[in-house]
Amino acid sequence: MASGKSDHALERLVFFSDAVFAIAITLLVIEIHPPHLERGAGTSEHLAALARLIPNFVGFAISFVVIGFFWSGHHRAFTLAGRYHNGILLWNLALLGAIAFVPFVTAFSSVNYDMRVPAVFYWSWIVLTALLNLKVNSIATGPRMLGEGVTPEAAAAVPRRSLAVLLGAVTAFIVAFAAPLAAPAGMATVPLWIWLLRARRT
Amino acid sequence: MASGKSDHALERLVFFSDAVFAIAITLLVIEIHPPHLERGAGTSEHLAALARLIPNFVGFAISFVVIGFFWSGHHRAFTLAGRYHNGILLWNLALLGAIAFVPFVTAFSSVNYDMRVPAVFYWSWIVLTALLNLKVNSIATGPRMLGEGVTPEAAAAVPRRSLAVLLGAVTAFIVAFAAPLAAPAGMATVPLWIWLLRARRT
Amino acid sequence: MASGKSDHALERLVFFSDAVFAIAITLLVIEIHPPHLERGAGTSEHLAALARLIPNFVGFAISFVVIGFFWSGHHRAFTLAGRYHNGILLWNLALLGAIAFVPFVTAFSSVNYDMRVPAVFYWSWIVLTALLNLKVNSIATGPRMLGEGVTPEAAAAVPRRSLAVLLGAVTAFIVAFAAPLAAPAGMATVPLWIWLLRARRT
Amino acid sequence: MASGKSDHALERLVFFSDAVFAIAITLLVIEIHPPHLERGAGTSEHLAALARLIPNFVGFAISFVVIGFFWSGHHRAFTLAGRYHNGILLWNLALLGAIAFVPFVTAFSSVNYDMRVPAVFYWSWIVLTALLNLKVNSIATGPRMLGEGVTPEAAAAVPRRSLAVLLGAVTAFIVAFAAPLAAPAGMATVPLWIWLLRARRT
Repeated sequence: MASGKSDHALERLVFFSDAVFAIAITLLVIEIHPPHLERGAGTSEHLAALARLIPNFVGFAISFVVIGFFWSGHHRAFTLAGRYHNGILLWNLALLGAIAFVPFVTAFSSVNYDMRVPAVFYWSWIVLTALLNLKVNSIATGPRMLGEGVTPEAAAAVPRRSLAVLLGAVTAFIVAFAAPLAAPAGMATVPLWIWLLRARRT
Repeated sequence: MASGKSDHALERLVFFSDAVFAIAITLLVIEIHPPHLERGAGTSEHLAALARLIPNFVGFAISFVVIGFFWSGHHRAFTLAGRYHNGILLWNLALLGAIAFVPFVTAFSSVNYDMRVPAVFYWSWIVLTALLNLKVNSIATGPRMLGEGVTPEAAAAVPRRSLAVLLGAVTAFIVAFAAPLAAPAGMATVPLWIWLLRARRT
Repeated sequence: MASGKSDHALERLVFFSDAVFAIAITLLVIEIHPPHLERGAGTSEHLAALARLIPNFVGFAISFVVIGFFWSGHHRAFTLAGRYHNGILLWNLALLGAIAFVPFVTAFSSVNYDMRVPAVFYWSWIVLTALLNLKVNSIATGPRMLGEGVTPEAAAAVPRRSLAVLLGAVTAFIVAFAAPLAAPAGMATVPLWIWLLRARRT
Repeated sequence: MASGKSDHALERLVFFSDAVFAIAITLLVIEIHPPHLERGAGTSEHLAALARLIPNFVGFAISFVVIGFFWSGHHRAFTLAGRYHNGILLWNLALLGAIAFVPFVTAFSSVNYDMRVPAVFYWSWIVLTALLNLKVNSIATGPRMLGEGVTPEAAAAVPRRSLAVLLGAVTAFIVAFAAPLAAPAGMATVPLWIWLLRARRT
């Protein structure tokens, strides 16, 4: 019974988290306002109006991938967790708060793309989110919550991946100072960090 | 235990997908802005204001049906899936990204209805979504994920239906070039494609 | 296994429906735009700005109760359903589409309160929703889906309650023509209709 | 079977509540509109634009914590509940309505921060929400719904915590009259109230 209750608490936490991830990722789109053209507007004017929205489309795509990344990490970590522990509640709430704020930083950096402040603001927010993500995933796969029968390697892979995401975000953050438009490329270093961290370990 | 874990991962993926479908389908409405009439406005002015929103209402209805269609296909495919496989994660995320973007293409083609670019943009997006949908549903009912005890015919019906949806979307896309307003009728060819694909098979 | 699959399909339908109900009911609030007062504005100006929003607050409350009503009826009907049947899918989607549109009719009748057209439009939409609700709940508690061990009286109470909601909505719709502001009172006749329908039955 | 059905009704209520909490908490962000700067704007202008949004950021953070608080209390109470009772339905809906309205009171007090009316309005709303929260959590851990095997102390801790949240909200409400900006500090008295209520009990 006690274990059933604990499972239930874990399930509800996961459910609530999933809902926040799903809403944040879907809300990204309402920050993109459809251009309203005049009735007589021709094909070239419509195409030009769409072209002006390209930074918004790119911003949507990047944040979709970023939130999707965090969600799949959360997914992976909590699949390994076997029981609920109260110590995760506040950290998880803080992570969800950071995720829920992503639509704002996305909209701000999309309407002012190519500028240093919005890009640095965006990537510093992702660094903060990645820090909270590392903390939450480490608790979920740590001694207080890890499920039975999970191998140490499987458990160790989760925080390692979270750390690689953090290092990728830090890279993007640094690039944002010099070349705002190139910052997203920093996230592409995540596989490199995973490889380096794995190599260091063995 | 291992299978319990796999079930759980599958369930959470399905849950997250359902949430994104549900949010996208419900967000369609907030792109329709209620007209604000002056205090003294009479019945005819109110009716005229509503009449001007007809393209938005039609756009809402079409996209509701389109997303509902994709959701029910996803629903059908994952009811047959019996176990989780990591290979579906990224494709499913891409599909959800495409679905999450539908409120934007709907709003854009509603405020500029009867124009070629918005209609072609809308239907090319639906073609892309249908392609991702075909991929995801094929993986879910393919050898890596199919549940035990599912008959080959039941499994084959899912990708066939997804292919028919894709062909319907392509038809709508082609019609959009010539007659933007008639494009939705292209989707009405889906039952025809299902019938043709089934006939070809036997 | 077959029954497990059917349960799963039923669960996912219920889940998707719950999500759409929850999103629609929560989206009601974003149609209320907070008034932005100037820095030097005093207490009386703030109170006046809030007072101007009273129709929006009332509209929010009414629609919250109306959607909550439909949700709790859906909840009750599907608690009695024991297995999934494909015949409910499209009707349920249509009901969800009607629910998802409620934030629009709410906003339209709130910004133009006290006018006949918005009130009649609002209540005719609720009548349509109540019709779909009656259909869905009748299927869910009908021979194709009813769970084992449910008493005939328990099953009969669900469509009766749905019919009473429909009659209440029709009453509100009729009142809206004569006195738009009094229309919500029509919904208060629902308990009366439940009582009359129950009396007729015995 | 009867108990399975009751569990299902409880689960669906919890699920619906979770979804409303999750949506309300995530919708907070869309009330913050990203400033659109001109193409040539420099770093200092960007920073100034962000600085002007600080009240909105603070409002987002406070409401996120407040809703998160209510959610975690709900979570705790329903983990102890063992069976569904119809008496909770309307109170829970009223609580969800109060939660769903929080994005509005947040936006209103953020755009007019430092003013008495918006701050008093905000905190009176939180007092109302805390009252409904106390009622719902008392029913969930009361004789009609409490699960078997839950110790009396565990059950008593839930309404005690809810009462402390209410007293904290009342404190914030009183502070809001005198010093609007200091009101959130009133919520920081919650641990003090928990301590006092626990001391009184023994």
